[in-house]
Amino acid sequence: MHPLLPSLLPHFPRRDGELTVGGIPVSRLAREFGTPLYAYDAGILRARLDLLRAAVPKADVYYSVKANPNPAVVSVFAKAGAGLEVASAAEYLRARAAGGAPERILFAGPGKGEEELRLVVERGIGEIHVESREEISFLSKLGGSGGRPVPVSVRVNPKADVSGGAMRMGGQPAAFGFDEEILDEVVRDICARPGLSFEGIHIFAGTQILDAKVLLAQWARAIEVARRAEAVAGRPVKTIDLGGGLGVPYFGNEGELDLAAVKAGAAELFRGVDARVILEPGRFLAGPAGIYLARTRTVKESRGKTFVVLDGGMNHHLAASGNLGQVIKRDYPVVNASRVGEAASQSAAVVGPLCTPLDTLARDASLAPTRAGDLVAVLQSGAYGLSASPVGFLSHPMPAEVLVDGGRATLIRPRGTFEKPITELP
Amino acid sequence: MHPLLPSLLPHFPRRDGELTVGGIPVSRLAREFGTPLYAYDAGILRARLDLLRAAVPKADVYYSVKANPNPAVVSVFAKAGAGLEVASAAEYLRARAAGGAPERILFAGPGKGEEELRLVVERGIGEIHVESREEISFLSKLGGSGGRPVPVSVRVNPKADVSGGAMRMGGQPAAFGFDEEILDEVVRDICARPGLSFEGIHIFAGTQILDAKVLLAQWARAIEVARRAEAVAGRPVKTIDLGGGLGVPYFGNEGELDLAAVKAGAAELFRGVDARVILEPGRFLAGPAGIYLARTRTVKESRGKTFVVLDGGMNHHLAASGNLGQVIKRDYPVVNASRVGEAASQSAAVVGPLCTPLDTLARDASLAPTRAGDLVAVLQSGAYGLSASPVGFLSHPMPAEVLVDGGRATLIRPRGTFEKPITELP
Repeated sequence: MHPLLPSLLPHFPRRDGELTVGGIPVSRLAREFGTPLYAYDAGILRARLDLLRAAVPKADVYYSVKANPNPAVVSVFAKAGAGLEVASAAEYLRARAAGGAPERILFAGPGKGEEELRLVVERGIGEIHVESREEISFLSKLGGSGGRPVPVSVRVNPKADVSGGAMRMGGQPAAFGFDEEILDEVVRDICARPGLSFEGIHIFAGTQILDAKVLLAQWARAIEVARRAEAVAGRPVKTIDLGGGLGVPYFGNEGELDLAAVKAGAAELFRGVDARVILEPGRFLAGPAGIYLARTRTVKESRGKTFVVLDGGMNHHLAASGNLGQVIKRDYPVVNASRVGEAASQSAAVVGPLCTPLDTLARDASLAPTRAGDLVAVLQSGAYGLSASPVGFLSHPMPAEVLVDGGRATLIRPRGTFEKPITELP
Repeated sequence: MHPLLPSLLPHFPRRDGELTVGGIPVSRLAREFGTPLYAYDAGILRARLDLLRAAVPKADVYYSVKANPNPAVVSVFAKAGAGLEVASAAEYLRARAAGGAPERILFAGPGKGEEELRLVVERGIGEIHVESREEISFLSKLGGSGGRPVPVSVRVNPKADVSGGAMRMGGQPAAFGFDEEILDEVVRDICARPGLSFEGIHIFAGTQILDAKVLLAQWARAIEVARRAEAVAGRPVKTIDLGGGLGVPYFGNEGELDLAAVKAGAAELFRGVDARVILEPGRFLAGPAGIYLARTRTVKESRGKTFVVLDGGMNHHLAASGNLGQVIKRDYPVVNASRVGEAASQSAAVVGPLCTPLDTLARDASLAPTRAGDLVAVLQSGAYGLSASPVGFLSHPMPAEVLVDGGRATLIRPRGTFEKPITELP
């Protein structure tokens, strides 16, 4: 059995031998919406937000829409008072459609288009994180002509941490933001432009951080950088954006981020910080709330190895196939969702229906003995799942997305068909 | 300069310093259709087919639709008399929409759905490559009830090659087809079912083969396996499907497949073979015909490294970002398409607009000095480009696809918009 399952499965409690999502058995979801599908539990989405707010009371939490841009998911966070971090004009429009207030949206990204910048400025935006000279100059013109300065924050690519700590971070060349070495000059430039309003700084954070010490060290650097920017600007910054980067465990060798340690460290760190502190996680908030559910089409033996062949695979869940940045391919937590109570006595590769060996969702899963027709679930799939996958690969119909809330399952993205495989969000 | 460029660029000849596709300068394509975009040269598609037919006159060439499922691309091959290999019901419908005759279509895949099988049987299909017991049993029922036997071929996962050759191939466990060890039993089962018509065998080929010897060894094994199947069936097979697997070079360490060696070997190999020999390449036919074209949004220096930031990236071209199965990330051939004549004196990372370091199209490209506004092209992008990419990642509008034929550029997939980023094929 995958080492993470004992801690993950209680969030999807077993009923009559089956996995449930928000209280609904997977067989009912499959019957009602077809397979494959993604199902998200709104209760877990909200619980994750509460967990983070409790650990870092000082933080104003923004949901990073790119993690799961389905408007119904975004709406859960917007209703719970979270801000929304968007990375494209389309994400901005989805954030608005999901009920996000413009002043609670911030826009970041290393190569924003002029049409995108114009759109968000015209329709209202809380903050734009500038990352290039071109953006500063273009926004300055927009703000100047519109009469209302555009609120901008500077994304900073930090210098190497020479504080003597155990963690080495920063100091690398990057396409994101401005190197800390030229921060003074950039802040002065922004402050000198009447079309811009200087709000603060945003540190380029790492991703998938599971070590509280690394996270806190990064946050400490952000505060240092903010102090420096204040000295240059001659006044306090309004916001310090610590980025996202809070991880969730996927593989057997990973564990949960220690939120108690984060809480203790953060309390210390933010003493005396008056600026609004922004955290913008996506994966941490949405990842644990979702499963990818597919049906077994056949179980094959080949030269001593068992293959469970599903009706969906890497086309819907690239990350689980190990093709979204993983160097060493490890297995996501996968379970026979139709037989959660049975002993995981079968060792099998779990593969999708595509004509390529890349279409492998788990190389060596321990499953309850699986038969054609069984439902198989990939856990920790609420973030960077469907929207980060090559849905057109081999032209299989796009899966449905379903949100379960208060014991009710709602279709939040229709399935594709053979005639029109790819579906757009509502 | 990327080592492949000297041999690739002549297919996209320079005019007024710019790259052209099928005679049209990239600046005109960009003006007319916007960026990013994919552009395919129909002349190159046809030339690739001719090249293969000349090298292997015995082969009946089928285009593997998964390589590039745009109906306009599929149509070029269908019109040129190629068969079409499909891997899903939606690919089948596209093949038909592109003018493919049902008897010239074959259907393969390790986990075909019953609805898919029913659809292709009802509408007509040349051959179905069975890969599981469930498929044999289901198709046998379909054929039995419809009164017309379903034409099936057996996909075989070959045993290790013990012929003493230098190449080791086969012998691995796989989700594809049936192990050669049980071939006799499978062939007998099929021949005994009145609902099925046994056509022949299909060998599971490797992918991206650039060594003529490896390819020929594989083909030789296929003929051996076919002979064995004939002995069991008690009559000659009608088809021997050699699979695809013919590669094209992408990286500096790769070279073109030696077609002269393939030709010589194939002539020898197919002497005395009466069955119809099927080749079903996709990448070989479509790969060299396409470019991905994006516009530079900014050029950044960070700690001594130059970053060219484009308006599209891994969301449109996952393979170039190194996240489609590559173990070692090497660079695709990338060129400043606006300045093809200038010396490639700039060393730069070419990245897309997404908020992730994964969004890197080339780690260390040699480019003519690039400025914001310049067009950058990724070559060898006609296969496994757009359809194999996570187009919804960060919700940027899907790029247009354009086919250039006879000096005319036709829009074959519309661009997305901020409101509806994802576009379906016409």
